[in-house]
Amino acid sequence: MIKKGTRVNIYGREYSIKGDASDEYIRELADYVDVKMREVAGNGSSMDAARAAILAAVNIAHELHRLKKEHKERDMAIYKKTENIIDTIEEQFEDIRFIK
Amino acid sequence: MIKKGTRVNIYGREYSIKGDASDEYIRELADYVDVKMREVAGNGSSMDAARAAILAAVNIAHELHRLKKEHKERDMAIYKKTENIIDTIEEQFEDIRFIK
Repeated sequence: MIKKGTRVNIYGREYSIKGDASDEYIRELADYVDVKMREVAGNGSSMDAARAAILAAVNIAHELHRLKKEHKERDMAIYKKTENIIDTIEEQFEDIRFIK
Repeated sequence: MIKKGTRVNIYGREYSIKGDASDEYIRELADYVDVKMREVAGNGSSMDAARAAILAAVNIAHELHRLKKEHKERDMAIYKKTENIIDTIEEQFEDIRFIK
């Protein structure tokens, strides 16, 4: 079965978007992009669609990059905490001589 | 000091992008958007900039959404592991009666 594209309206123009995702999810993404374009265009602006879409894409790419960076730092922090837990257990028992 | 916009070229057109970020970072984002637009447009395509930028923005938004979902699931997995560690420590010692 060939999946038909999902019809969406972004910045006042109709687009057909194909993808493996559900129609509902594709519409959510389209709405998100529409909102971002209207944000960069500003109220009552007549900014052309290409400029609005490019600036919106740059802003979304910025958010994606920021999130990747944040998660990398968080990952490192969690990794260090797991190391600290292991060290703590070893340190707590290092002055106890277990009779084996 | 008012920061001047960073001049970038995306999909063959010049844009001035303002932001708190460095010129270098803004250029990286612009290059990323440029590549994504050319990907959706396909080789030798004459897809108009608005359509290419909107489809690129939808794809980047999809990646952002997917990453947020992945990290949320990973966060939950790590949280459960920390609970498991606490439970394991408690369980290991539950049959030992410490003389206090």
